[in-house]
This record gives sequence, C-alpha cells and structure tokens, in this order.
Amino acid sequence: MQNEGSNYKHVSIGSLKDVTRQELHEALALSGVEVSLNRMAAGQAVPFLHSHKQNEEVYVFIEGKGTFVIDGDEIEVGEGSLVRVDPAGQRQIKAAADSDLFFVCIQATAGSLTQFSMTDGVIC
Amino acid sequence: MQNEGSNYKHVSIGSLKDVTRQELHEALALSGVEVSLNRMAAGQAVPFLHSHKQNEEVYVFIEGKGTFVIDGDEIEVGEGSLVRVDPAGQRQIKAAADSDLFFVCIQATAGSLTQFSMTDGVIC
Repeated sequence: MQNEGSNYKHVSIGSLKDVTRQELHEALALSGVEVSLNRMAAGQAVPFLHSHKQNEEVYVFIEGKGTFVIDGDEIEVGEGSLVRVDPAGQRQIKAAADSDLFFVCIQATAGSLTQFSMTDGVIC
Repeated sequence: MQNEGSNYKHVSIGSLKDVTRQELHEALALSGVEVSLNRMAAGQAVPFLHSHKQNEEVYVFIEGKGTFVIDGDEIEVGEGSLVRVDPAGQRQIKAAADSDLFFVCIQATAGSLTQFSMTDGVIC
C-alpha cells in the first residue's frame, strides 16, 4: 500500500518481522538521507568491514542482540542501542548466535545539517 | 551505558517501552542528521501542525497505530508505515484512541545527499 501528495510519499510494508533489508531512498524518493531497515538472522554476520567516503551513519537497534565491531572495538548491541559512526570508522555487524537483530540504519552527508527541530521547524 | 572511540559514539537507553521522546543529535554528537525516538500514548496528539524551513523528514513507524495528517490528507499509520515529508508539508501526528504509537523520526537537509551505499561505502 502506498499513497502520496505533493509534499509526501507513504509506503506501508506491514509486519517488520518479515523484513530482511528494506531500503527507503528509492521507495520514498528521499533527497537528504538514506534509511534502511535491516533484520539479520541469528548467527548471521556482514562478511566484510566497511567504511564510508563522506557519509555519517546512525544505527538505531530496535530488537534482538548482536555485536557491532568498530575500529576493532566490540560493542554488544540490542534494544535501545544507538550508535553514530563517522565516515572513516571501519565497521561490521554480527547477530548473536541465538538471536536475530533488527535495526534502522541512516546515512547522511557528514556535516550537512545546519539547523533542526526548533530552529528549522515552523508552527503553522 | 555509553562508550566511544575516535570514529564513533554508542549510547544504550535500554527498553524502548520506556521512551517518550529521545533526541539523538546531542547524545551521539551527530553532524549530518537529527534522529528522534518518539512514543505517543494512546489518545495523544501533537497539538499543532508544523512544517520545516529546509529539512526533509522521514518517519519509520515501528509499533502501534495512529493517524498522520499531511496537508489535510489523513493517513492511517502503524507497524511498517514509512513516510517522507518535504519541508513545506504541514504535518501532525495522533496516536489512536486505543493504542500508543512508536516511531523513529529523521531530519536531514533536503537535497543534501549526493551518494550513498555502494557509491559511498568502501569495503575495507
């Protein structure tokens, strides 16, 4: 299901239990950010380390358990873990052996936000 | 709990059931995006319409039910609803009378993303 107006686009994908990877940039015609929903199965690991050229990443862990490796540091993550990684950070995510891991990943150009919330919002 | 390295910052807030509003910009020292976690109680509504000056917003609805009003259109939202709103869109969110509503809201400068994923990522 989806619908749109001149200033918005809405897509509904239903249950988040069924997601493996859902990228939103094309689906929502985004211009300032890329957002993806990711569910890794128990025991699954991204098979490589990666960094970025210019994008900051923000990870919002919603459900499950896993390990986030950044520049060799091993961080235990799960519900309520919130992580910023700068472009140069070498990162890799692994779901726990006994739990899947569901998270939202956000990419934006580092340094590109100049104002937000009370300074960018306008009460109509 | 929190820890950081030269290229990252991690904060854990634990159960997402207890969140009302958690803003990440300051907590994670973000530079390209603002991200907030929002839980509205059943029957609660943001008491005003708002738009933005230059920021695109992306809403990722995780749990619950509610109504998203944009430029007068009423969209029923719940788990798996994904919405982009351009700066000019006049928006307001209401939780359903019988359900709370939990969502991630992302703000980024409209038009600021120039490359992402395969074009910005580097396998290490």
